[in-house]
Parts: sequence; C-alpha cells; structure tokens
Amino acid sequence: MDIMQDERIDDLQYKGLKLIQKKSGFCFGIDAVLLADFTEVKKNASVIDLGTGTGIIAILLAGRSEAREIVGLEIQEEMCEMAGRSVKLNGLEERVRIVNGDIKNAPEIFGRSSFDVVVTNPPYTKHGGGLVNPCDMKAVSRHEILCTLEDIIRTSGSLLKPGGQLSMVNRPERTADVLCLMRKYGIEPKFMRLVHPQPYKKANLILVRGIRGARPYFKILEPLYVYNPDGSYTDEINRIYHREKV
Amino acid sequence: MDIMQDERIDDLQYKGLKLIQKKSGFCFGIDAVLLADFTEVKKNASVIDLGTGTGIIAILLAGRSEAREIVGLEIQEEMCEMAGRSVKLNGLEERVRIVNGDIKNAPEIFGRSSFDVVVTNPPYTKHGGGLVNPCDMKAVSRHEILCTLEDIIRTSGSLLKPGGQLSMVNRPERTADVLCLMRKYGIEPKFMRLVHPQPYKKANLILVRGIRGARPYFKILEPLYVYNPDGSYTDEINRIYHREKV
Repeated sequence: MDIMQDERIDDLQYKGLKLIQKKSGFCFGIDAVLLADFTEVKKNASVIDLGTGTGIIAILLAGRSEAREIVGLEIQEEMCEMAGRSVKLNGLEERVRIVNGDIKNAPEIFGRSSFDVVVTNPPYTKHGGGLVNPCDMKAVSRHEILCTLEDIIRTSGSLLKPGGQLSMVNRPERTADVLCLMRKYGIEPKFMRLVHPQPYKKANLILVRGIRGARPYFKILEPLYVYNPDGSYTDEINRIYHREKV
Repeated sequence: MDIMQDERIDDLQYKGLKLIQKKSGFCFGIDAVLLADFTEVKKNASVIDLGTGTGIIAILLAGRSEAREIVGLEIQEEMCEMAGRSVKLNGLEERVRIVNGDIKNAPEIFGRSSFDVVVTNPPYTKHGGGLVNPCDMKAVSRHEILCTLEDIIRTSGSLLKPGGQLSMVNRPERTADVLCLMRKYGIEPKFMRLVHPQPYKKANLILVRGIRGARPYFKILEPLYVYNPDGSYTDEINRIYHREKV
C-alpha cells in the first residue's frame, strides 16, 4: 500500500485495524474511539458517519459490529481519497464505502429514512467569525465552517429511519445545543455519558444518543473516567481499547 | 413557639436555623441544601422560591445571603401556614415572606421582571396519569399535579429581570426537559452540576443555572460527590453543611 510523503500509517490496536493519517493534519483522538464504543450497531444495520474525516469511526465500527453497510461521508476530497485507501488497507471495501459529498445534501444523495444509525464526531467549536482559514483541513475538522451542528442534526433527522439512532460526541459546552436541536428535529435524546479525565475533574467530552421519534425519557449514564487517580488507565478504557489491565 | 401534634422542629445545622416539618409529610432532603448552596444571591437581591413547601430554601437563603427580600410561594395553604411559622421561629419576618398562591399566577401577583433570582425545587416526576392522589401533600410535592415543569420555567421567564438567574434542582431524567424549556422561555442555560452519591456511581441529581437573555455558553462544572469511596462525607459536603471534616 502506497502512502504519500506527508502521511503515516497508525495501528488502531484493535483487531489489527490500521489508519492512514496526515502527519500534519487532524489526527484521531480518544473521542473517536469512545464514540465508536458508545454506538450500538445491530447486525445488518445500515450506518452513516457524517464527516468521516480519516474514516476512523467507520473503520472501527466495521471492526466492532456486524453492520451490513457503513457509509463515511466527507466533504474534503483529499480526506476522502485518503480514507478510501484506509478502507482498502483493511480489506473492508465490501462493507465500508467512503463518499465525497456535503452533509447538507445527504438526504438527497442517500434518500430520507434510509439509515438505522447516524454517527458523528462533528466540529466542536461554534464558528464565531473570520479567524480561521477555510482552506485549512484542521480548521474544517474543528470549527463549524462548512456545516453547523444544526445542519448535522437536521440532516440526521432526515436520514434516520423511525426508531433509528443518532450517536454523537461533543464538548460539554454544546450540551444544551445538542439536546435542544435533537428535539427540534424529532430525535429524542435518550442517553448521555460524561467523559472525565479523572474522577475528581470536570468532564471534557459528552457522548449523546438519541432515537428518532422516541418518547421522552432521558438517562445520564455512569461517568466514564479515562485515568484512575494514580494515573493508570481505568478498567473501562482498557476494555474499550482491548488492552490488558496495566 | 407552638407546633401541632403531627409536627416536629428540625435543626438545620446552619447558623442555628430551624424548620417546622410534618412528621408524616414530605421532609426536606439534601437536594434543598445543595440547591441553596448552588444559588448565587447578591447583596440586596430580590429572590422568589417557587413552590417553597416547608420554606426550607427560603430560610436557608436568608441565612446564607444578604438578599433584601425572599418570597416563598406555595399553593398548599396548610404548608404555607407552617412555613410562615418557621420564618417567625427564626426571626426572619423582615426579609422572608411566605405567600399562598399558584405559581402560574405569580407574574400577576408580583409583576413581570420583578426578581433577580428565581429558585425552585420542583416536583420531579412527570404526571403520567391518575395514580396519585391530588389531596396528598406528599404527592403534590413530588409529582406534576398542580403545575408542570413547563409552567414553572415559563413563569420564571416572566418573573426574572433581564440578566436574572433561575436556579433549579431536578433529576437527571429531566435534563433535556430543563435545558430545552429554559431556552424556549428566554432563559439561557449556563451552568450544570451533576450530583453523584459516590465517584463511581451515576448522578442522581442535577443543579442547573440559567440567565434570562444571556448568550449561549454552557458549562458543566466539576461533579459533586456526596460520599467518599470509604463512606465518609466529602470535604465539599462538609463545607456545604458547615460541619467539621469527619
């Protein structure tokens, strides 16, 4: 497998899966791994990852689930091409398809009510002005430049079958935005999990799962701690990464 | 001070404050104490406690703050009369006023945009049917029989001055309801704190603070743990109750 000069191949440390990433670009973090673990994908499900970037979540879900089809939608052509090579590198071409396109057009591309699961690790930061460069791939991954949280949730409401699941990671600052926009577009928020670096520190990520058309009943699950107070990984993080307890 | 046969006087263990409660009724819990601590009351502020019940929060806030005026609004006449006696028992008649009335009529009784702070420990459980007895004082305190969460938040939006604060305790199940209803009625959710019995257990209470007319920026604060893993109270709970560290 050829890679470009500014790329590297990372081992996902899960079932031998690998990922091509830009040396200088936006590299996947724990948020993608936690989101893939948090997402419930049933056998034969059809899944779409909105803004798949390197393809990390699509590839992890292919390894973790028996989904029939996983689509990774990405607007940046260069990222798409690279994600496509990662799919091939893992021999997942039959189940994972990377598509170059705009999230806002997804219902036209794929049809309404066409997916069991929508998963997304959206840009976290609200676009507040002209400070970021729209040609910068890192900036597009982090800021709401090409689409907003509302675009993503509105699109998810269109793409999901009734009873289908939207699974999202975001920053705690966006909690009210995520929950209220889900309701606005017919996706009832059902579960939230807060991710804390350590038990006595405040959460720095939220994982949220909503169900299209469900009746309101919300649960905040057990907190997820990344490190124990002694600095070692918690049992749960070891389980998620399929590592032995340190 | 005379008390009725079915009443008792409890020591609030804070600045000598006392509270009359029904032996058989809904007794105040840690939620009221945590809410009073979570609520920021500036000097000379005007405060209203919607659904004051025994008056516990109004009385604690009078002890903890330099509020000019604290109104406790309560629909149940018998509770009102008892809360009024608790106010007298503590010599707080000049600053704390218990008013018998319906939350839904509060803007007519007190005027719109008339308070700096609205505080409320509302009934937690959504009223789902006819299983509870509306004459039961405990049931009225726990279930949305006489007013709903939406009634309370709509009323708060009317009662608050621009920039005024709504401070609420509720169950985690109502998180989406609380945040979305606040936005609906012009109160921007700003802070949330999750209360966990212990560090590795899931939260069983949420504390939420919103500001009328503020711009959106939400923060999830450090988690509040009630007990340490060894079963002793945490330092923070000892601070809140003004007890020495055990």
